[in-house]
Amino acid sequence: MRKVALAGFGLTEFNKDDTTIDSLMLLAIKALFENTPNLGQKDIEVVLTSTNDNSKYLSSIVSEISGIKPKISHSVESLCNSGANSAISAFSYIASGLADVALVVGAERFDSPGLVLEWDKSRGQYKHPIYWSSMFTKSHVRKYGTTKEDLAIVSAKNHKNALDNPYAFFKKTYSVDEIMNSKNLTEDIRLLDCSMPCNGSAAILLASEEAIKKFTDIPVWITGIGQKTLSAGFTKNDDLTSMESTIDSASMAYKMAENKPTDIDVAEVHDAFSICEIIEVEDLGFAKKGKGNELVRDLYETNDKKINPRGGLIGSGHPLGATGLAQIVEIGQQLQGTAGRRQISKAKIGLVQNMSAAATSSSVLILQR
Amino acid sequence: MRKVALAGFGLTEFNKDDTTIDSLMLLAIKALFENTPNLGQKDIEVVLTSTNDNSKYLSSIVSEISGIKPKISHSVESLCNSGANSAISAFSYIASGLADVALVVGAERFDSPGLVLEWDKSRGQYKHPIYWSSMFTKSHVRKYGTTKEDLAIVSAKNHKNALDNPYAFFKKTYSVDEIMNSKNLTEDIRLLDCSMPCNGSAAILLASEEAIKKFTDIPVWITGIGQKTLSAGFTKNDDLTSMESTIDSASMAYKMAENKPTDIDVAEVHDAFSICEIIEVEDLGFAKKGKGNELVRDLYETNDKKINPRGGLIGSGHPLGATGLAQIVEIGQQLQGTAGRRQISKAKIGLVQNMSAAATSSSVLILQR
Repeated sequence: MRKVALAGFGLTEFNKDDTTIDSLMLLAIKALFENTPNLGQKDIEVVLTSTNDNSKYLSSIVSEISGIKPKISHSVESLCNSGANSAISAFSYIASGLADVALVVGAERFDSPGLVLEWDKSRGQYKHPIYWSSMFTKSHVRKYGTTKEDLAIVSAKNHKNALDNPYAFFKKTYSVDEIMNSKNLTEDIRLLDCSMPCNGSAAILLASEEAIKKFTDIPVWITGIGQKTLSAGFTKNDDLTSMESTIDSASMAYKMAENKPTDIDVAEVHDAFSICEIIEVEDLGFAKKGKGNELVRDLYETNDKKINPRGGLIGSGHPLGATGLAQIVEIGQQLQGTAGRRQISKAKIGLVQNMSAAATSSSVLILQR
Repeated sequence: MRKVALAGFGLTEFNKDDTTIDSLMLLAIKALFENTPNLGQKDIEVVLTSTNDNSKYLSSIVSEISGIKPKISHSVESLCNSGANSAISAFSYIASGLADVALVVGAERFDSPGLVLEWDKSRGQYKHPIYWSSMFTKSHVRKYGTTKEDLAIVSAKNHKNALDNPYAFFKKTYSVDEIMNSKNLTEDIRLLDCSMPCNGSAAILLASEEAIKKFTDIPVWITGIGQKTLSAGFTKNDDLTSMESTIDSASMAYKMAENKPTDIDVAEVHDAFSICEIIEVEDLGFAKKGKGNELVRDLYETNDKKINPRGGLIGSGHPLGATGLAQIVEIGQQLQGTAGRRQISKAKIGLVQNMSAAATSSSVLILQR
């Protein structure tokens, strides 16, 4: 397998204006070109677009308006896990030798058709993601005694981290009390336990070992990949206190990268809801099962940004098709040492966990300087 | 690059009933399992779905209803070129070493949102594909003297070939006169010059050299791949008498496979409209430029099924996301020698050409017994 590295990236601000999906992608691509001075349109052999938008032929549209004539070009969709899927697809084009340089751009609008699980007829009125997160929360609370305050700390931490992310949707912090007293959406979930749909786009450039020299002196290698899809409907899970697809994906990624959880210096985890981060830090091996709350509390109290330094989905906003790619951009910047006020000292190995629909599918990537 | 071969396939009948997109895919997957006795759900590491349907999370839904828990799973869209894109993506997962066995399933319904180029605001009222095919036709007629009869012969040949395809949408032949006298849709195009939207699904199984032994004794290797996206809007073309993206894709595929046009024993080309087949046999190097009509006339008169043996899109129907995969299935059967009454004698090397939207993007695959 040929080596593949992150060669460049671009982001847009996450907001709720009325920009179209193709324009959002163009803005992130423009930022990527500005960040990558030696990159020319002719270098790019693959253009993949990641979104839940209903647009057709979007990768060709975005290629045309960006002045790119790629070999390989299509759209990738797997709900919230679209971003990691598209990045791993681009990885495989390069790793196989079919291409040397790939551009992957994800974007979503705040009114995305991917926000509600309309496809799941068995959900009845409970199609909104708050219902699965409510079930996860109730299960974890019952089994491990996780408290309302533990959940609020995830949100308080990630809003605080997002203050140093110039692209974040949220621009303010909330106290643990404010979060605990925010509007109850279900018995288990409050408004500030949730990530917010928004507009946003993130673009990454991947390159082979030969090609990357033109674009950066600080390549960040993708050394581990794991993916798993268990089902579409989340009631297939026997145990709603863990994410089996994340456990499986992490196991594959650690094995491929020859790493273990304690090797990870910085991680982006998919905190669609506050309970997710608590479960994920457990399932990725950063905390013992049932002790995720203690790890998150400790990070919050010591102002350690190791988990979700850009503010996670809760602080940064969650433009579905862009999220997995924005996570990769953050870990890329952390490992390059260009994360500014968010920088984790001496970060050498990072992890991205992206997932969909109650973790019925997950992707885990390990990146290394 | 690891070797990748076609290990199995399944098809549904192409028709216009009211089957849902997920059910269409399930039917093709069921047929694939029936055709591949040693295949178990646990063998499958990749499930890619190819469609223009607006369904979200379709690859996970189809995986769940098929009893498959893949590692890699997402939907791929590039209008009519979705099928080849998804197959080549699965190829790259295996060629790279990320997976050994991949299932790719494409499907479309007759009422697909991919049928009209709604995304192209610059088209005004001329968004229907008949307008680009009308421009191609007029250009080729002017430059090379291609006649209305030449066009009708493409359709007559492909309807005749489709009679031996049990899955084809059309079940009857038309005389050249009937086709020439069918309803005028534009000055250049008649109803029977067009492929018809319909329901249909096609599934293929790809496997690595190590894995394939379990599934078939007659692997068909994918030896050449070429892809090119030039634009989204088709008025970027300077010359509407050829398909630049097909020329580029064919050149890459021939080079990778170390083949030349005269090596190809059988080909599936994307005859969305009759003019397309005439241009494509020229651009793929099977006929001199401007002489595509003579090749097609000769095939028709000698009952030679070398080009579009299953009846092409015109005879078989055109369920967008399934088409590229159905083309691969046909070439697979031809090279395995299992094409029944459609069988091309001693076929060893085959070619698939799949394209989108006035050939603004194309894919070419070369397969070899």
